[in-house]
Amino acid sequence: MDTTLFTVNNLWIMIATFLVFIMHLGFATLESGFTQSKNTVNILFKNVMIIAIGLITYTYVGFNLMYPGEAYAGAFFGFAGFGLSAPMKELVVDGAKTMALDLSYNASYTYWSDFLFQGMFAATAATIVSGAVAERIKLNSFLIFSVFFVGICYPITGMWKWGTGWLDALDTPFYDFAGSTLVHSVGGWGALAAIILLGARIGKYENGRINPIPGHSMPLGIIGVFLLWLGWFGFNGGSVLSADPASVSLVFVTTSLAAAGGSVGAFIASYAFTKKYDLGMTLNGILGGLVAITAGADQMGPNESIIIGLIGGILVVISVILFDNLRLDDPVGVLAVHLVNGIWGTLAVGIFGNLAGGSQFLSQLIGVASVGAFSFIFAFLLFLILKFTIGIRVSEYEEVEGLDKHEHGMSAYIFES
Amino acid sequence: MDTTLFTVNNLWIMIATFLVFIMHLGFATLESGFTQSKNTVNILFKNVMIIAIGLITYTYVGFNLMYPGEAYAGAFFGFAGFGLSAPMKELVVDGAKTMALDLSYNASYTYWSDFLFQGMFAATAATIVSGAVAERIKLNSFLIFSVFFVGICYPITGMWKWGTGWLDALDTPFYDFAGSTLVHSVGGWGALAAIILLGARIGKYENGRINPIPGHSMPLGIIGVFLLWLGWFGFNGGSVLSADPASVSLVFVTTSLAAAGGSVGAFIASYAFTKKYDLGMTLNGILGGLVAITAGADQMGPNESIIIGLIGGILVVISVILFDNLRLDDPVGVLAVHLVNGIWGTLAVGIFGNLAGGSQFLSQLIGVASVGAFSFIFAFLLFLILKFTIGIRVSEYEEVEGLDKHEHGMSAYIFES
Amino acid sequence: MDTTLFTVNNLWIMIATFLVFIMHLGFATLESGFTQSKNTVNILFKNVMIIAIGLITYTYVGFNLMYPGEAYAGAFFGFAGFGLSAPMKELVVDGAKTMALDLSYNASYTYWSDFLFQGMFAATAATIVSGAVAERIKLNSFLIFSVFFVGICYPITGMWKWGTGWLDALDTPFYDFAGSTLVHSVGGWGALAAIILLGARIGKYENGRINPIPGHSMPLGIIGVFLLWLGWFGFNGGSVLSADPASVSLVFVTTSLAAAGGSVGAFIASYAFTKKYDLGMTLNGILGGLVAITAGADQMGPNESIIIGLIGGILVVISVILFDNLRLDDPVGVLAVHLVNGIWGTLAVGIFGNLAGGSQFLSQLIGVASVGAFSFIFAFLLFLILKFTIGIRVSEYEEVEGLDKHEHGMSAYIFES
Repeated sequence: MDTTLFTVNNLWIMIATFLVFIMHLGFATLESGFTQSKNTVNILFKNVMIIAIGLITYTYVGFNLMYPGEAYAGAFFGFAGFGLSAPMKELVVDGAKTMALDLSYNASYTYWSDFLFQGMFAATAATIVSGAVAERIKLNSFLIFSVFFVGICYPITGMWKWGTGWLDALDTPFYDFAGSTLVHSVGGWGALAAIILLGARIGKYENGRINPIPGHSMPLGIIGVFLLWLGWFGFNGGSVLSADPASVSLVFVTTSLAAAGGSVGAFIASYAFTKKYDLGMTLNGILGGLVAITAGADQMGPNESIIIGLIGGILVVISVILFDNLRLDDPVGVLAVHLVNGIWGTLAVGIFGNLAGGSQFLSQLIGVASVGAFSFIFAFLLFLILKFTIGIRVSEYEEVEGLDKHEHGMSAYIFES
Repeated sequence: MDTTLFTVNNLWIMIATFLVFIMHLGFATLESGFTQSKNTVNILFKNVMIIAIGLITYTYVGFNLMYPGEAYAGAFFGFAGFGLSAPMKELVVDGAKTMALDLSYNASYTYWSDFLFQGMFAATAATIVSGAVAERIKLNSFLIFSVFFVGICYPITGMWKWGTGWLDALDTPFYDFAGSTLVHSVGGWGALAAIILLGARIGKYENGRINPIPGHSMPLGIIGVFLLWLGWFGFNGGSVLSADPASVSLVFVTTSLAAAGGSVGAFIASYAFTKKYDLGMTLNGILGGLVAITAGADQMGPNESIIIGLIGGILVVISVILFDNLRLDDPVGVLAVHLVNGIWGTLAVGIFGNLAGGSQFLSQLIGVASVGAFSFIFAFLLFLILKFTIGIRVSEYEEVEGLDKHEHGMSAYIFES
Repeated sequence: MDTTLFTVNNLWIMIATFLVFIMHLGFATLESGFTQSKNTVNILFKNVMIIAIGLITYTYVGFNLMYPGEAYAGAFFGFAGFGLSAPMKELVVDGAKTMALDLSYNASYTYWSDFLFQGMFAATAATIVSGAVAERIKLNSFLIFSVFFVGICYPITGMWKWGTGWLDALDTPFYDFAGSTLVHSVGGWGALAAIILLGARIGKYENGRINPIPGHSMPLGIIGVFLLWLGWFGFNGGSVLSADPASVSLVFVTTSLAAAGGSVGAFIASYAFTKKYDLGMTLNGILGGLVAITAGADQMGPNESIIIGLIGGILVVISVILFDNLRLDDPVGVLAVHLVNGIWGTLAVGIFGNLAGGSQFLSQLIGVASVGAFSFIFAFLLFLILKFTIGIRVSEYEEVEGLDKHEHGMSAYIFES
C-alpha cells in the first residue's frame, strides 16, 4: 500500500465529511428561512436533534445495516451486529506489541472515515423530511419518526446498492453515484407520506384557492442554499471514495454546472409563469439541479450537466405548482427538489453520459420504483402508527399561535426598537 | 510524474475552488447587510444569478479567452474556440482501449480543476460590481451587463497576465499574484463606470449634505466579511497553483496578517474621524487589507503584510469619505475596498517584498493603468448602450418603495409579533 | 524526508487552520444571537477586533512565549524573542544560491503553518471571554484586556504543556490533546474573573428572582453552533499535527459523537427541568460535548465519546442553573460550556480511554488547578487594574439604552415595514 496516497485519499474523505456536515446547517437555515417566524425555533430544534439522532443510530445500528459485509452480497437485507467494531491489528513498536487500526480495511480510507462520512449522509435523509412537515408536526412524533427512518429505513435501501445488495447485483446494475435515489428520493418519499397523513397547514387551501404562505427570511434561505451547494462538493466529490484527480475534479465541474443550470431553468420557468424574478424558485432550482446531477455526477460532461440542471430547475417550478394543485402542502418545496429531481436525476443516468442505454434505463426505473415503494410504505406505516398513538399534528390553537411559543416557550427573534 | 504529489496538489486546488465558491455567499450577505431591507431580495437575486452567469459564460467563452494557449503568448487577445474540450488520452485497461483525462495537461492539477477554479474567480468580478449598483439598477440590465463583463472583459485583461499575454511579456513582467488588479480592480473599474452612469440613490446627496443610508443588518455584514476572509485562503492560497508547503503556508500567513492589519487601520482611522467604533468601516478595512495583499501575497513577510493591510484599512476610510465628497454613491464601499486597494496592493509589490524595485514599480503602474483603462471603458460603453436601450435605472417610485416589491413581488422579511 | 507526505500533512494543518478561523464567525454569531439586539454591534465589533489582536500579538510575542524552544523544556516560563523569524536555509537553483524556508523545522508542517494554526487557537481564548462580559463591558477595556490575555497569559500556560514546559515534564505527564484546559478553561477562568468584577446586568437579579434575558436571534445562535462544530474538526483534527489517517479519522468520530451526545444530554436534562424543548440549552449542550471531548479526542472510542458528551450536556444545564443561583451573570453560558466542561473533559482523560488511571487522574487535576489558578489570577488582576483606572463597565444609562447606540452610534438592524 502506498501510505502517502492512502493519507491523501483519506484526507479527502474527511474533508468531504465536514462538507456534508455543514449541509445540516444549510438545511436548518433554508427551512427556517422559507417558513414563518413563529415556527423558527421549532425547525431549528428539529434540525439540531436530527444530526444527533442520525449519528447515534448510525453508530449502533445503521452502519451495520447498510454495510453488512460480503456475506450479504445481492441480498435484500443484512446486519453485521450492533455497534461499531473497528478492525484492529497487532503492531510492534520498539519491540513491544500494541494494537492499531487496520488500514487494510479499505484501499483509500479508514474504518472511521467510512463510518462518519456515511453517517453524515444518513442524517440528511430525515432532515429532508423535516422541511415538508414544518409548521404543523408534533416535535416528539417527528423525533421518533427520525430514529426509525434514519436508523432502519435509510440503511436498508442504501444497502441494496451501496452495500452490494440486490440492486447492485442486477445484470445491468442500478447506478446511483451519490444518492439521487438512495438519499434524496428516500427523503422525498418520506416527505410525501408525511404530507398525506398530516394534511395541509391551516389556511393554505381555502375555498378552492391556494394561499401562499411566504417564508420569513430570504437571507436565511440563501445562506441555506449556498451552504448546501458547498456541502455538495463533499457529497458528490466524496462519493468518488478517493481523491482521484480526474474523477473528483470532473464531479466538481458537473455538480457546479448542474447547479448553475438549475438556477437558470427555474429563473426562466418562474418568470414565464409569474413575470416576476422569483428568488425562492431560483434558489430551489439550484437545489433541484444539484439533486438531479447527484446520481450521475461522474458520468456526465459539461453540456449534459447544464442540461440536466436546466431541466431540474424547470421541473422544480412545474412540480411546486402541480403539488399545490394536488393540495399537497409542502412548505419549502421538498417534493419538487428532492423527490421529483431525485427521480429525474436517476433516470438521466440512463439517458445521458457514459451509462446511457435501454437496459440501464430499465435498471434505473427498477431502482427508483423499488426504493420508492419501500421507503414510502415504511414512512407511511410509521407515521400512521404515530398518528393513532401519540398523534402527529399539533392542535389548531398551537398551529395558529406558532409552535415556538407552545413547544419551546420562546420566540426566535426579539428586536428592540 | 509523481501521481501522489499530483493528487495532493490537485486536491488543494479543488479545496481552494470551494473556498472561492463560498466567497459568493460572502458577497451576497455583505452586500445585503450593508443596504436597506427593502432591496434585499434584489441583491440576493443578483448574487445568485451571477454565479450561474459566471460559470456558464466561462464554460462556453471565458476560459478559452483567458487561456488561449501558447500561440498567443505576449498578445493582447486570443481565443481557443467555444466550449470546453478536455484533453483526453488513450488508456489500456485489462487489454481494452479506453479514453481517460490526460493528466499531463498540467503538472499540478487537471483540466477540470483549472477550469472550475478559474471560473469561480471570474464570477467574482461581476459580483464586485453588484454592490456598487445596489438599490437602483434594473435587474435585467445588470444581468446582461454581467454576461458580457464576466464573459468577455474579465477574461481578456486576465489573459494579458495569467494567460501569458503582453503584460506577462514585459521586460520586467507585471506581477499580480492572485488578482489585486486582474480581479478586484477590474470589478472596481466596472463599479466606477456604473456609479457614474447610474447616479446616486435618491436622497443620498441633498442640499450639499451627505446623508448616510445605513445598512439593515450588521450580522449579515459580518457573516459576509468572515466568509470572504475564509474564501481568501483559497483565493490567494490556491493561486500558488500547487500545495507547495512553503508557498501556501506563507500565503496563508500574509493573507491573514494583512486582514488583521486592515481592521486595525480602519479602526484607528475611523475612530480618528468620528470618535465612534465604526463596525462597517472596520469590516471594510479587513476586506481592504485582503484586496491589498492579494497581488503580492507570496512576496511578503509578516511585517510587510501587516503594514500593507494597515495602510489598506486607512485607505478604505479615506476613500469612502473622498468618494462621498465626489458624489459617487457607492452603497457598500466597493470603490474603497476593491478599486483603491486593488491599485494600492498592486503598487505595493513594487515597494515591498522580494520584487521591490523601480522597474517593477513601473511595470505595476503599466498593469494598473492598462487593465484599468480597458475595463473602465468596456464597462462604461456597455452600460451606456444599456442606458440608451432598455435603461439601467428603476423608476423613482420603484426605488423609493423598494426593488423587492416591484421586481420580485415579495419582501425579504416577514416577522410576526 | 518524504516530500509528498510532508505536503499532505502540511495541507491538512492549513485546512485545520481555516477551520479554526471560521470558529471566530461561530463565536460572533452565537454570542450576538444569544444576547439582546441593542448590543449586537458591540459584540460583533469585539469579535472582529479580537482576531486582529490575537494574530498580531501572537506574531510579535505570543508564539515565542508559547514555543520558546528546547532550552526551556520543563520550565515555567520561556521566551524566544520578539517577532517571527522563519528558519531559512541556503538553496542552489540553477547554479545560483538562494534562500528558502527550511522545511526540516518540523516533520509534518512548515514554520508558517505552525504559527498560523497556533495563532488562530490563541485568539479563541479571548473570544470565549467576550460572551461572558457581553452587554455591559466597556469596549476599550475589553480590547486592552484581550491584548494581555491573548498575548501573555494564554501562551504562558500553553507553554507549560504544549511548549514542553513543566506540566509536560511530570512523571505522568498532564494530557490535554487539543485544549479542554489550555484553551477552553483558560477562557472560562478569564470569564469568571470578569463576571465577578463586572457584576450582573441591570435587572437580571431582582428581589431574589432570576429574570432571564433571552437572546434576540435563534438563527444566529444555530449558525454559531454549527460553525463551531465545523471548526472543531480543525481544532481537534488539526491537533493530531499531521494527516495521519488513523488518528485524524478517529478524532473526527469522537468529536462528532461527543457533540451528538452533548445535544442529547442537554435536551433531556433541560426537558426534565422545564418540560420545554429548550433550543438554547441544546445548542450549548453540543458545545459542552465538544469542549469535553477536546482533551482526550484521540484517546476515546465511540461509546466513551458519547458518554463524555452526554455528561457534558447535562453539566451545561446544571451549571447554568447553578451559576445563576450564585448570581454569576453569564449571558451566553460561557462558564457552563467552557469552564465546567473544560475541567470535566480534562478529568475524563483520567477516567476513560487509553490513558485512564490514578496517576493520570492526579496529573490531570494538577494541570486543571495550576492552569486555572494562573489564568484566573492573571485575568482578575488585569481587570482589577482596568477597573480602577479607565473603568470596565459602561454607565447605567448606556447599558439600558444599549451599547450600540453609544459606543458605535448605530443600530445592528433597520427593518422597514
